[in-house]
Amino acid sequence: MTQPGFTGAGLDRADHLRLDPERLAALLARGDALLLELDVVDPVLDQDNALSWGPLNEATETLFLGLEDGRPLFAPLVQMEQFGQRAWSVFRILSLMRPRDAAIWGAARSLNEWHNRHGFCSVCGHATAPFRAGWGRKCPNCEAEHFPRVDPVVIMLAEHEGRVLLGRSPHYPPGRYSALAGFVEPGESIEEAVARELFEEAGVVVRDVRYLTSQPWPFPGQLMMACIGRADSDALTLDAELDDAFWCDRAGVEAALAGDPQAPFQAPPPYAIANTLLTRWLDGA
Amino acid sequence: MTQPGFTGAGLDRADHLRLDPERLAALLARGDALLLELDVVDPVLDQDNALSWGPLNEATETLFLGLEDGRPLFAPLVQMEQFGQRAWSVFRILSLMRPRDAAIWGAARSLNEWHNRHGFCSVCGHATAPFRAGWGRKCPNCEAEHFPRVDPVVIMLAEHEGRVLLGRSPHYPPGRYSALAGFVEPGESIEEAVARELFEEAGVVVRDVRYLTSQPWPFPGQLMMACIGRADSDALTLDAELDDAFWCDRAGVEAALAGDPQAPFQAPPPYAIANTLLTRWLDGA
Repeated sequence: MTQPGFTGAGLDRADHLRLDPERLAALLARGDALLLELDVVDPVLDQDNALSWGPLNEATETLFLGLEDGRPLFAPLVQMEQFGQRAWSVFRILSLMRPRDAAIWGAARSLNEWHNRHGFCSVCGHATAPFRAGWGRKCPNCEAEHFPRVDPVVIMLAEHEGRVLLGRSPHYPPGRYSALAGFVEPGESIEEAVARELFEEAGVVVRDVRYLTSQPWPFPGQLMMACIGRADSDALTLDAELDDAFWCDRAGVEAALAGDPQAPFQAPPPYAIANTLLTRWLDGA
Repeated sequence: MTQPGFTGAGLDRADHLRLDPERLAALLARGDALLLELDVVDPVLDQDNALSWGPLNEATETLFLGLEDGRPLFAPLVQMEQFGQRAWSVFRILSLMRPRDAAIWGAARSLNEWHNRHGFCSVCGHATAPFRAGWGRKCPNCEAEHFPRVDPVVIMLAEHEGRVLLGRSPHYPPGRYSALAGFVEPGESIEEAVARELFEEAGVVVRDVRYLTSQPWPFPGQLMMACIGRADSDALTLDAELDDAFWCDRAGVEAALAGDPQAPFQAPPPYAIANTLLTRWLDGA
């Protein structure tokens, strides 16, 4: 079964060590401890297209990623000039990376972006500082504790008589279409968010929503949850978030996933869960 | 099929109206518009145990909940003295409420707690103000936009030879046991979070994790995702988060869900997804 991108890091995150300053200091002092190399927050690859790692140094503030077969792995806490933006160049690098590396890097990227966007306490406005080995920030003024934000997003196919709904956002590369997606809001379930988003963006009413699989998405920190719902009608009413949308049959999806230049659309890349979703739909999910 | 609690509000959230000040003003001016009554953030019930609604008034800052059959529904934006705490009394009220009412109130409660915890900009520390009809806050200093936080949480049964793993946290009422649960972290999928949490809290290794269903949980704003995984061993190593845990067979779960005083544990209430999860497991999920 195709595994979604950004999964399979295989690290023991060792949560119990994060609040244990003595054992954490011992990990940092270990001769075999490794520090992930980053180009700001982008991955740095070695000649085998594997993630580059170096030794720890005392000048770098670190995030504890976890233990790999007992060896402690850290990432630097970097200062980002900008955030909330993706450099498209990172997607070329990602296409070269093995899944385990993409997953480890993804966690480091999400954490870094969260720290950079959360330097101040949302409760009282005071500057905060990292704690829990980088898995939180604490306010020295009001003592509020803040934890990394993970935003749940539904990404879904509506299905109608053997065809599935694909759409394109204005910022997509030419020819690219994908599954529709949207943030889950307070006060709704995954299944309700799927139905709401398909209705808002495309005017499509679905029922029998089923969940397939999930992935973390590090731009900056979404949890993508892939679903399929059944539509009773193929009528479309697009909102402003979509440039275009159409119902695609199996042959079209097969051609796109195979990279056929005659395909009716250009498929999302393998590390995006939309690709996994389309693959599993073809497989009968 | 048992529906999870806090779902089924049935409102059209009408996202396209949130950023349209003219149409929003028209909704607020409608004679049939309704304002949810709240006791700070707790529900207020009428003599039929339905949510109480009143007319809008100009002194109250509002959150736009959505349209019900075209009628606009609002909740007040309240000032909370405390947040991040649950009054146990609200659970007694919830047991009286119909599902649609609990779902509508849950959204209002989550939004209110988020506003109260996010009065300041996490990017620059400046005071922020509500926008998008209450579905966001904006910083007048750095112009950062902030959106309501939804924290994804996995809640799961490990299954071993016809029995499921139940645990109790120190803060549970006497006799109460439930499915284990934990927050999804940056850089992991739902399936990975299920495996990590079961291993961290109980030393149990699972595979073949399957998702069942979800619910929003308004204390303060989680998205609960119910899963089941298969364990190869029933050995337990409990961490400090659990007071106790045990493997329960079908007869024990049936007795607990039926409210039998001789049951091996007291089941979580019907509006908690752990109850739905146990019910669906009995039904063969």
